[in-house]
Amino acid sequence: MPYFDAASSLPLHPVARQALAAALEDGWADPARPHREGRRARMLLDAARETAAEAVGCRPDELTFTTSGTRALHTGVAGALAGRRRAGRRLVVSAVEHSAVLHAAEAHREAGGEVTEIGVDRGGRVAPGDVAAALGDGAALVCVQSANHEVGTRQPVGEIAAACRAAGVPLLVDAAQSLAWGPVEDGWSLLAASAHKWGGPGGVGLLAVRKGVRFAPARPVDERESGRAPGFENIPAVVAAAASLRAVRQEADAEAARLSALVARIRARVPEVVPDTEVVGDPAHRLPHIVTFSCLYADGEALLHALDREGFAVSSGSSCTSSTLTPSHVLRAMGVLSEGNVRVSLPPGTAEEDVERFLAALPRAVASVRAALDVPPSPGTADPLLVDSLGKRCPIPVIELAKTLPRAPVGEVITVLSDDTAARLDIPAWCTMRGQEYLGASPNPDGPGTAYRVRRLS
Amino acid sequence: MPYFDAASSLPLHPVARQALAAALEDGWADPARPHREGRRARMLLDAARETAAEAVGCRPDELTFTTSGTRALHTGVAGALAGRRRAGRRLVVSAVEHSAVLHAAEAHREAGGEVTEIGVDRGGRVAPGDVAAALGDGAALVCVQSANHEVGTRQPVGEIAAACRAAGVPLLVDAAQSLAWGPVEDGWSLLAASAHKWGGPGGVGLLAVRKGVRFAPARPVDERESGRAPGFENIPAVVAAAASLRAVRQEADAEAARLSALVARIRARVPEVVPDTEVVGDPAHRLPHIVTFSCLYADGEALLHALDREGFAVSSGSSCTSSTLTPSHVLRAMGVLSEGNVRVSLPPGTAEEDVERFLAALPRAVASVRAALDVPPSPGTADPLLVDSLGKRCPIPVIELAKTLPRAPVGEVITVLSDDTAARLDIPAWCTMRGQEYLGASPNPDGPGTAYRVRRLS
Repeated sequence: MPYFDAASSLPLHPVARQALAAALEDGWADPARPHREGRRARMLLDAARETAAEAVGCRPDELTFTTSGTRALHTGVAGALAGRRRAGRRLVVSAVEHSAVLHAAEAHREAGGEVTEIGVDRGGRVAPGDVAAALGDGAALVCVQSANHEVGTRQPVGEIAAACRAAGVPLLVDAAQSLAWGPVEDGWSLLAASAHKWGGPGGVGLLAVRKGVRFAPARPVDERESGRAPGFENIPAVVAAAASLRAVRQEADAEAARLSALVARIRARVPEVVPDTEVVGDPAHRLPHIVTFSCLYADGEALLHALDREGFAVSSGSSCTSSTLTPSHVLRAMGVLSEGNVRVSLPPGTAEEDVERFLAALPRAVASVRAALDVPPSPGTADPLLVDSLGKRCPIPVIELAKTLPRAPVGEVITVLSDDTAARLDIPAWCTMRGQEYLGASPNPDGPGTAYRVRRLS
Repeated sequence: MPYFDAASSLPLHPVARQALAAALEDGWADPARPHREGRRARMLLDAARETAAEAVGCRPDELTFTTSGTRALHTGVAGALAGRRRAGRRLVVSAVEHSAVLHAAEAHREAGGEVTEIGVDRGGRVAPGDVAAALGDGAALVCVQSANHEVGTRQPVGEIAAACRAAGVPLLVDAAQSLAWGPVEDGWSLLAASAHKWGGPGGVGLLAVRKGVRFAPARPVDERESGRAPGFENIPAVVAAAASLRAVRQEADAEAARLSALVARIRARVPEVVPDTEVVGDPAHRLPHIVTFSCLYADGEALLHALDREGFAVSSGSSCTSSTLTPSHVLRAMGVLSEGNVRVSLPPGTAEEDVERFLAALPRAVASVRAALDVPPSPGTADPLLVDSLGKRCPIPVIELAKTLPRAPVGEVITVLSDDTAARLDIPAWCTMRGQEYLGASPNPDGPGTAYRVRRLS
């Protein structure tokens, strides 16, 4: 049964499995001990560091193994900010960073620091000029991912790095999604990644800090990993992580070409086989294996379950799949539809037949979810210029708008009342997709929630 | 070849190896995902938590998996202090805690908090009354280990817990060394442990926080492990850790009796077969598998290497084995000899013959090290009342004192000049062992270093 959630986590690569089994024999002792067992563990750790550093494109002594990609990002952001404290306290992050970066930014803000968020275009891409414009005024660190984890959009890291270098501000690149495919463009100051994204084991992250970058790790520290990652090193896992990174890199170019073609097929075919669907993410600057689309009038969580029943494991950024009931911050920053959102991320080796089977199953799954949501007209639909969707969750407000609009005269303005967070994103996105005019939102003058205004154009 | 450094790290238990292999198949996905692979991972994680909680003696929802015992301690100390911030900012720790606790205490001090250190007796044991006396005045948290990692001394955790409970101050118990042997006496508020100490994999720690204990984890956090351990869970390792904890517990009582008898044999025999040796650590309240002794006139690092050549992996708390050139803080707090220090910690299954072989090899190893250190008389020894050991490292100052003293008249006072950190510990300890009178230390009036005064009594 096909697993299409590679961007979340991958099963262990066969090379990682072999390396892990071997390193469990020789890598369990404390590498800080001078006895035979400790020396053997140290040798394995040193070799793994050299292998990983070569793949990253840095010196072994610039590379630290952390216990996760999240921890690498938390440590990297905090350490670089602390090291640059005298230069300033402003952290610049793109709006589509991984939550680990945004959590670190939030912690910085709570500690009295300042955070500047750089927006993205509708494809999810950061403009280097926007970063450059944010670099004065005590900017201490810039964080930009090499590629987005939800929509696959690649960022112009080289240009951003050049702007940072010109301003003398270090750049931290979250390379979690891209490192398997190749090294990050040159010019970064810090780099973070996560092994289970490339078929390494869980529990291993990488943090590279270029020589010369000021860095002051948060306390408490200990003597391990240059004081940047306290706690006993998990050497068997580190060895497996490094070995599998080298292995996936050897297959990367061929597999990228193959998966990229399969993703192109999904990008082209989904709007053909499923009506009212928007493929999101930059069509050109993208990772080979990730494709994301949103389906109007569909509940993302129900869609995940329907696809799971069809045998496909995928992910979703829809609000109904999150515990906070807010849509993915990535989709929000892009200003694209969030309802019925599906992320397909293909693991290496994905068979063409499985993609075809997915494209055959998807229309059934979406249709079943849409059929289940075929809600009766709400009381508000008696008036063709007012949709009262208060108390109803995504995708109901958009469904009710779509049902009501054809009954309004062309040129008239329809008001949608909603207290669902996703409506702020999905009503404008629906208007764009359907060629209607979105006029804006304001607090509901007669009660709770927000009033969205839409002019019927056609 | 016998590995006698179990207190540092153990090879993977066979049960852990089996559990790991099985969980690598089913536990690699993100347990937060609603698809089939995610649900399987979640089930493994939940089952591991139940198993570990049963061994700890807490509810599953009180238990968090961390990425190391060190991380469990750092998180536990910081979280409990932050949760009790209104009650006070004073942290009470025993002087013999693991460095992870002392590093956390140091971080607390640097952040403006207060730290009270509780001393120990010559056996390394904390007096519950000393803890009770430190509990007024804004005490926010007490940290006491269940048993010491360097000398094996067990602490009176039950009595300390009762004192803490009476004062309304939470108690964090570092159970890293003892959890394999049985649950910690009741009454603790937080408990930390480390899987590779019981034959689980590296990369897994436990942090239990009793319901009702105020706890505010340090930022940044994420949604994993109740917000107490950010980063992707390493489920295969967690499963292996829990399975091996249950397995070692089943063998614990029988193995504890067997190893304890072997340790008793080492405790009795070492002073018989190696002259001028002190066995340290409480003889009664001790872990079954750890025994530590110090050898006068021996360099700890050289001794480790000599034993390694004889095929025995052991550890040492001597200053010459540490990068800081200071003797172990544990030996210092106990006020015992630190030179020529050797910790023997027997892994489960240690054969009696290997212990006998060790007892046969030890005298050879110590003799070879002592012979190599048979330094020529220093210039200072021309005067039988002055030993000038400035610029010389442990154990030279004590060797020179021992050579000079027989030439001084009984009743006279000998002055030893030394700038070695270990001298402050080893000169008084030598006097105690040799029945000479230690009069004290003061700055050297004529130059650098310290002047130690010793009266020859016999």
